[in-house]
Amino acid sequence: MSKPYVRLDKDNAVVLLVDHQAGLLSLVRDIEPDRFKNNVLALADMAKYFNLPTILTTSFENGPNGPLMPELKELFPDAPYIARPGQINAWDNEDFVKAVKATGKKQLIIAGVVTEVCVAFPALSALEEEFDVFVITDASGTFNAMTRDAAWDRMSNAGAQMMNWFGAACELHRDWRNDVEGLGTLFSNHIPDYRNLMNSYSTLTNKQ
Amino acid sequence: MSKPYVRLDKDNAVVLLVDHQAGLLSLVRDIEPDRFKNNVLALADMAKYFNLPTILTTSFENGPNGPLMPELKELFPDAPYIARPGQINAWDNEDFVKAVKATGKKQLIIAGVVTEVCVAFPALSALEEEFDVFVITDASGTFNAMTRDAAWDRMSNAGAQMMNWFGAACELHRDWRNDVEGLGTLFSNHIPDYRNLMNSYSTLTNKQ
Amino acid sequence: MSKPYVRLDKDNAVVLLVDHQAGLLSLVRDIEPDRFKNNVLALADMAKYFNLPTILTTSFENGPNGPLMPELKELFPDAPYIARPGQINAWDNEDFVKAVKATGKKQLIIAGVVTEVCVAFPALSALEEEFDVFVITDASGTFNAMTRDAAWDRMSNAGAQMMNWFGAACELHRDWRNDVEGLGTLFSNHIPDYRNLMNSYSTLTNKQ
Amino acid sequence: MSKPYVRLDKDNAVVLLVDHQAGLLSLVRDIEPDRFKNNVLALADMAKYFNLPTILTTSFENGPNGPLMPELKELFPDAPYIARPGQINAWDNEDFVKAVKATGKKQLIIAGVVTEVCVAFPALSALEEEFDVFVITDASGTFNAMTRDAAWDRMSNAGAQMMNWFGAACELHRDWRNDVEGLGTLFSNHIPDYRNLMNSYSTLTNKQ
Amino acid sequence: MSKPYVRLDKDNAVVLLVDHQAGLLSLVRDIEPDRFKNNVLALADMAKYFNLPTILTTSFENGPNGPLMPELKELFPDAPYIARPGQINAWDNEDFVKAVKATGKKQLIIAGVVTEVCVAFPALSALEEEFDVFVITDASGTFNAMTRDAAWDRMSNAGAQMMNWFGAACELHRDWRNDVEGLGTLFSNHIPDYRNLMNSYSTLTNKQ
Amino acid sequence: MSKPYVRLDKDNAVVLLVDHQAGLLSLVRDIEPDRFKNNVLALADMAKYFNLPTILTTSFENGPNGPLMPELKELFPDAPYIARPGQINAWDNEDFVKAVKATGKKQLIIAGVVTEVCVAFPALSALEEEFDVFVITDASGTFNAMTRDAAWDRMSNAGAQMMNWFGAACELHRDWRNDVEGLGTLFSNHIPDYRNLMNSYSTLTNKQ
Amino acid sequence: MSKPYVRLDKDNAVVLLVDHQAGLLSLVRDIEPDRFKNNVLALADMAKYFNLPTILTTSFENGPNGPLMPELKELFPDAPYIARPGQINAWDNEDFVKAVKATGKKQLIIAGVVTEVCVAFPALSALEEEFDVFVITDASGTFNAMTRDAAWDRMSNAGAQMMNWFGAACELHRDWRNDVEGLGTLFSNHIPDYRNLMNSYSTLTNKQ
Amino acid sequence: MSKPYVRLDKDNAVVLLVDHQAGLLSLVRDIEPDRFKNNVLALADMAKYFNLPTILTTSFENGPNGPLMPELKELFPDAPYIARPGQINAWDNEDFVKAVKATGKKQLIIAGVVTEVCVAFPALSALEEEFDVFVITDASGTFNAMTRDAAWDRMSNAGAQMMNWFGAACELHRDWRNDVEGLGTLFSNHIPDYRNLMNSYSTLTNKQ
Repeated sequence: MSKPYVRLDKDNAVVLLVDHQAGLLSLVRDIEPDRFKNNVLALADMAKYFNLPTILTTSFENGPNGPLMPELKELFPDAPYIARPGQINAWDNEDFVKAVKATGKKQLIIAGVVTEVCVAFPALSALEEEFDVFVITDASGTFNAMTRDAAWDRMSNAGAQMMNWFGAACELHRDWRNDVEGLGTLFSNHIPDYRNLMNSYSTLTNKQ
Repeated sequence: MSKPYVRLDKDNAVVLLVDHQAGLLSLVRDIEPDRFKNNVLALADMAKYFNLPTILTTSFENGPNGPLMPELKELFPDAPYIARPGQINAWDNEDFVKAVKATGKKQLIIAGVVTEVCVAFPALSALEEEFDVFVITDASGTFNAMTRDAAWDRMSNAGAQMMNWFGAACELHRDWRNDVEGLGTLFSNHIPDYRNLMNSYSTLTNKQ
Repeated sequence: MSKPYVRLDKDNAVVLLVDHQAGLLSLVRDIEPDRFKNNVLALADMAKYFNLPTILTTSFENGPNGPLMPELKELFPDAPYIARPGQINAWDNEDFVKAVKATGKKQLIIAGVVTEVCVAFPALSALEEEFDVFVITDASGTFNAMTRDAAWDRMSNAGAQMMNWFGAACELHRDWRNDVEGLGTLFSNHIPDYRNLMNSYSTLTNKQ
Repeated sequence: MSKPYVRLDKDNAVVLLVDHQAGLLSLVRDIEPDRFKNNVLALADMAKYFNLPTILTTSFENGPNGPLMPELKELFPDAPYIARPGQINAWDNEDFVKAVKATGKKQLIIAGVVTEVCVAFPALSALEEEFDVFVITDASGTFNAMTRDAAWDRMSNAGAQMMNWFGAACELHRDWRNDVEGLGTLFSNHIPDYRNLMNSYSTLTNKQ
Repeated sequence: MSKPYVRLDKDNAVVLLVDHQAGLLSLVRDIEPDRFKNNVLALADMAKYFNLPTILTTSFENGPNGPLMPELKELFPDAPYIARPGQINAWDNEDFVKAVKATGKKQLIIAGVVTEVCVAFPALSALEEEFDVFVITDASGTFNAMTRDAAWDRMSNAGAQMMNWFGAACELHRDWRNDVEGLGTLFSNHIPDYRNLMNSYSTLTNKQ
Repeated sequence: MSKPYVRLDKDNAVVLLVDHQAGLLSLVRDIEPDRFKNNVLALADMAKYFNLPTILTTSFENGPNGPLMPELKELFPDAPYIARPGQINAWDNEDFVKAVKATGKKQLIIAGVVTEVCVAFPALSALEEEFDVFVITDASGTFNAMTRDAAWDRMSNAGAQMMNWFGAACELHRDWRNDVEGLGTLFSNHIPDYRNLMNSYSTLTNKQ
Repeated sequence: MSKPYVRLDKDNAVVLLVDHQAGLLSLVRDIEPDRFKNNVLALADMAKYFNLPTILTTSFENGPNGPLMPELKELFPDAPYIARPGQINAWDNEDFVKAVKATGKKQLIIAGVVTEVCVAFPALSALEEEFDVFVITDASGTFNAMTRDAAWDRMSNAGAQMMNWFGAACELHRDWRNDVEGLGTLFSNHIPDYRNLMNSYSTLTNKQ
Repeated sequence: MSKPYVRLDKDNAVVLLVDHQAGLLSLVRDIEPDRFKNNVLALADMAKYFNLPTILTTSFENGPNGPLMPELKELFPDAPYIARPGQINAWDNEDFVKAVKATGKKQLIIAGVVTEVCVAFPALSALEEEFDVFVITDASGTFNAMTRDAAWDRMSNAGAQMMNWFGAACELHRDWRNDVEGLGTLFSNHIPDYRNLMNSYSTLTNKQ
């Protein structure tokens, strides 16, 4: 393989949060709810921490699909927010694509509900326009594992890179020395095992 | 990736339902029976809803493989129905291929029992003739997950796109505004969680 | 063991359907949704088929818990329907207990959402008053398998008998000769594998 | 615990094979089919090996439930064979109970399909009449693990002992010296891992 | 069963949180970490909400077992806090037992890490002294499911009641009318699916 | 995809059975033993049924790896049998490669124990020499599912086609009319669910 | 519950290791092999650490069942070692029972292969003679989880206490102050997660 | 496929062990701890056995990530040991890359914790520089199976070969005759099932 390794670059990445709405969340059964909620908020905190431009979009939020997770609205009060009037594929909505292109970024970090539709459709559309697409798999959910596997297969075959929020954060950060405390706090807030390590560590080192 | 994203197009798609027969259904153990039955009927209702040409075929239906699910016969009384005299790969049956080609469609939406034979064989044959093939994974079943994984690998490597019926319906519909009620009814009839959302929603909004 | 085997008796049994409401149903994750919906409707159809007195109750149905599954209301238009104003344990509601006692039956067939609360609490209360309690486990759901296991342990230790709807139907019916067609239809409508058997059978026997 | 340990005794045991019929077998999904078929045949071979009186019974074998596994008929050509005209609980059939009592045995080794009905009902009835009941769990099958768990709970609470065929064979045999080759052959024929051990062993010891 | 149903009573219950320490938490593998952390905090919030006396204890907190989860210390700054000098069974520590008895309560709600030791040992000791013991299973964790099953079996056989925090909260509260908002907030903070229901509900009802 | 679909052709295929030895079989834990034994024998019966040239090979059969499954030796008394003196990759053994090439076939159907070594190594070597390789996944076994997944990934990326024995048999047979009874017998002997279908069918059709 | 809590007491306990033989170990599939080997050695080290009398026994060790794990022989060179000539239930062997009774202990800590035979049979026999029986579940193995569940049910109903080696070690030790280092070493050698905690701890505390 | 099969070659391979640190190990939940520890030590022993140059590296070992597994330090006292000051991707550390290139090897055998970061990042970087990369999947661990699957997909798509330590050892060794005893010992020390085979074998062959 001689083609370059496409690495996430915090100066060239935008985060797309697609349809994390109260009703649709109740359809997600391939990830346990406590974990899924935590992952979505972790991705949002990551976007915030790295100051990545972030775009929110919803589908039919006044109907049964329900309102966007209020935590996301609060975290990104000034982010472009596209309440799509009907387009299922967010990329079919001109405002959404304009908002993406307005950032000037070529790397799309995308997550949403449900994976095979709200994530896969815009991912496939964006790949076709030569964007680099990074799917945050653990902040995306769907009906069951079989459906998820099929959606991953389709996106991966089209060139998307499958990641988790933790891997994305590490690839964006590159070097702990850029900010130990910030990244550590992000991890401590969203990875209980890591928080335990930090609690044990700080107890022991503070003691002396 | 510069090759275009091949999207399902309701004006260019045909649905192939292969060997959903009473006997063969008893072989399916990679999906729980209540869910599988629901998925097959959902795919059939989807075909009906989008007015997609639909072709039914069976293998040895007078033997132990048993009769076609009667619900499918009832839904598509006028569809081409090819009771294959012996060909295991439906694509080896001239009448079946003729029926497919007579539709003039280039996108094949296929599901059947069992996945690695009744779906994979015609899918591979059709890909070779440059059709676009979309496998509806959750309306296709087989002996166990390991067999399914192998069948998916073979089809995906040959260029088939792996989908679920819900994803296919969303890709065909494109925009809720084309018909909110119709699509909503399709989902409500086959996705209990969605039905619950709609029941709660309509109760609350009717009340006022 | 010399104590008599307490068998379900269709002349001495009442069915209690507790809190199968649209919102609460979205909490159920120990059973796959297609299967759970089917089981609840199967239990209801069973109650209907055996003409068992049936009592419906809900908790806070105007709030987020949501409305009762409409299918249940339709099946039992004349059944006692107790919309509890606040009691979590249905047995704490006088109207509910009165409705149960008014039937004069000593065998309670109970199912509900969620298992460890809406089923377990009235089951434990009724056992204390010397009712025989039969929990329909597969028409009762909760957050996860671990929670279900704990709830079963508590109810079983208190004397409840754990059953599935199919077992209950068989124990109530006693002998196929009482009505082959009726019971067969109940099974065919709610057990896809059984329906397949019947379809194959009737195709073969009608043919001759 | 001072009550005596009720051990299987080959002079006091009878084997009851209930409803292992072709149609009903297709309902069994709590055990993988290759394993289940092997277990049922192992139990039958065990009954044969220990010369235990064995009773066969079926439910509606001319209908969709289908014929008894032909291997069982062949193994026990002279065994009482009660084709029940309608009773779901075999113990409700006088001929069946008479056949059991005619053996004069007090230990019932029972297996069947489906567990919560065809096994549990006669097991509970027999326990009430002070028989000792040993359920062969791995030669009994049903719709899913949840249903099995409930059935086991009901039978265990009523005093049944839950065993597998291998444990029963060992408890009946007591001492390898009673017949090394016979028991070894039984295990080799039905436990692939044991057969491998024996193949390796005999290759090495024959060689020298 | 004529013995009374022992119901949790908020005027007669005390909460015992045993060894939820950073190091020990890393041993817990029978529950996913996000869910486990949430459950422990939910139980603590429940204790707070119902103003139940609460007792904290740790084992060797200056060694590898690590410090108590800081969130627990913060929630209960004035609770008895017994850092055990060595006793593995908290009930072997006089101060702990005194603290329990000082509350005058007879119902012990207990959770801890690891289940078969830190929970089971004091549970068994307390049952012997005729306390009623309610194990909060989902706020207790251990190495794997097999170990958990054995621990439950031992405690259940000795008379402990197995519950989850949600069931305990419901049994303590008895009637929503005692405080709808308070209980609703507790649930919304710790049950993502319930939070979704409430978000959808309040969006729809506020709108009008 | 314009490259032709490489279909199994009974006139161009050879079966390679690699290291199905008693000792090595005890390492297989990604498939349940009853099922695995059945699959290996099914593949062997398939080879026999289609008269495919078959080659047996073993690794160190006089050591702990143990003797070849005796059933295989009996089925193929005249097949080339290469007891490799030490080569782990069978393709590194000249006699083995010669035996393969002597058949003149270009399609290799391969299975063995363990998957990532005894199957993958010769598969990769043969692909490099432009053979078409069909891995019979369910007659190949290894330590666990994770190891299997990695082995499949490596072989699939190199161009191998992943199949199960049933799929291979269907692709080789092409048309039931070539021999209904023969293929049906093969399936009946190795697929319990299929045997059940045939038993029910023949009972019903013989009856009239 | 007023009957006393039967606690393991290091002055009143004996360890019985039954049939951990090379051949039989290959039958164990309810626990992953690395974990199982570790658990058996942990139990043995525990017996050694607490100086508990320990008794070894084997079944047919010159046949396919194979030799005892050599590590056990090395750890207990002077322990009674009963190579049973044929009795399947070790308690049927006089020498074994004599060896047990010679210790004068009333608490039997037992583990073996396979659970439902080599463990359950002597456990049930010993319970009948009023011994207290503690089954070390994770150092006992069998064919699959279903078989294990049935064996546990039978033993638990007869009064056995189900434990894991870690719980037994904690109950025997009572108080860390009896020997911190010894118990810590036992845990570090057999619980990788605990070893990690200790490594982190000692690195941090040594550093200062 | 005409491109050559890239086989591991013991004269051209280097082993990279990345971040197997006490703290990070507690994050690994996609492999059971006993198995994971064994796999890591097996890989290390394999590197030693084949005299492969080996490079150790850690991330922030003085913080919560904790010290390297001491066993690794002891096995490779003279290996390059790069304690990275902050770079998350080891390939971003010049000393690490220099150490790799100094070996002159083109085949990188890599394992680490966590898979999607500490393994995937240097793997992708090295592939870009035309190294051949072999990921030892079972000596690499991460948060859960879903995360692992995504990491494998990314690495596999970039050209990495996914293997287990056993497969790598077999591919490096090529022929048992190179050293039967050495390889056998490596397997016996790390594969309990293989050790059992060898124990049975040597007992039987020594006896005569």
